[in-house]
Amino acid sequence: MKIIIVGASGTMGKYLVTAFEKEHEIIRVGSKSGDVQVDITSPEEIENLFKHVGPFDALISTAGPTYVGPWKKMTDKEFRKGVEGKMMGQINLVLIGQRYINPKGSFTLITGALTHEPQLNFANASAANGAVEGFVRAAAIELENGIRINAVSPTVIEDSPQYFPYFPGEIPTTMKQLEYGFRKSVFGANTGQVIKP
Amino acid sequence: MKIIIVGASGTMGKYLVTAFEKEHEIIRVGSKSGDVQVDITSPEEIENLFKHVGPFDALISTAGPTYVGPWKKMTDKEFRKGVEGKMMGQINLVLIGQRYINPKGSFTLITGALTHEPQLNFANASAANGAVEGFVRAAAIELENGIRINAVSPTVIEDSPQYFPYFPGEIPTTMKQLEYGFRKSVFGANTGQVIKP
Repeated sequence: MKIIIVGASGTMGKYLVTAFEKEHEIIRVGSKSGDVQVDITSPEEIENLFKHVGPFDALISTAGPTYVGPWKKMTDKEFRKGVEGKMMGQINLVLIGQRYINPKGSFTLITGALTHEPQLNFANASAANGAVEGFVRAAAIELENGIRINAVSPTVIEDSPQYFPYFPGEIPTTMKQLEYGFRKSVFGANTGQVIKP
Repeated sequence: MKIIIVGASGTMGKYLVTAFEKEHEIIRVGSKSGDVQVDITSPEEIENLFKHVGPFDALISTAGPTYVGPWKKMTDKEFRKGVEGKMMGQINLVLIGQRYINPKGSFTLITGALTHEPQLNFANASAANGAVEGFVRAAAIELENGIRINAVSPTVIEDSPQYFPYFPGEIPTTMKQLEYGFRKSVFGANTGQVIKP
């Protein structure tokens, strides 16, 4: 399978590249590194990515920039970080990528437990996640040619212990669980699902 | 109670004004009519609204512009209608309005069944709804001074029969049910809830 991994240099992306590269052709996409460099807040750059890469079988996104910070400082301006990044960045990967993906291909986006389990400082991520999950369910009934779409929704992940203090009581998602969540989406047959790994 | 109703000239807004105006002071807000005219896609106009109205006890929003149309024609540009309107418009009503609302006041936003029950042509609304619902849950744990926030999530509403063909199998939400959903949020004690009327 030819698999595009967007966010390939991040904590999740790196792990998934290592997990999948033995058996699949991986195209690593990052904002500042990887095989192709793309700013996902730019629809033009996303279009160029797909033109450059050509037909592919799966796209995995672990790219989720959002604003993390005190509620009191959150205005429209800060909120845009997640709107342009984790939300519209990922949605545009699908709206544009659907014209390049092979029949029976799949999109797998990243959301997170914050959609339903909010934590202080993360309202921007809760909103972006909710948007992506609503979009995934809607896109699943619109995409044609057997193309599937799912989201993977971990809680705070094992390899990001710096975030543990912000998620009291959350049992971290292990990297292996995260990998298996993506495996379920990419190699399984479900569509329109929010997979909790 | 002094209640601001945003979207007061729409189908839902008009009904709610009539239902609540006998017992409460209602400030009707519309994009082109009402006591105050506001373009909710502009944070500046929202700020001016609250400066003009002064302290209030509840804000009800039924303002939900989104793009409705064929998936094939949906690009970043069309998607922005719901992002700026139903999503950021409503979120900014809260981020800005929290500095003007009275202690123990409430915000009640509008979402809809499309968050979890997608229909063809409405992916933009599914995403905007999901964003607002995620935001409502997160804002509920951030707002201080007893200020509450909920969303009301109807399916296609009784007084908009022109939409019935787009919602096969959905039993329409009656106007009375809708009113009671808003009553539960405004006059009840819950917060962070998505109320299905």
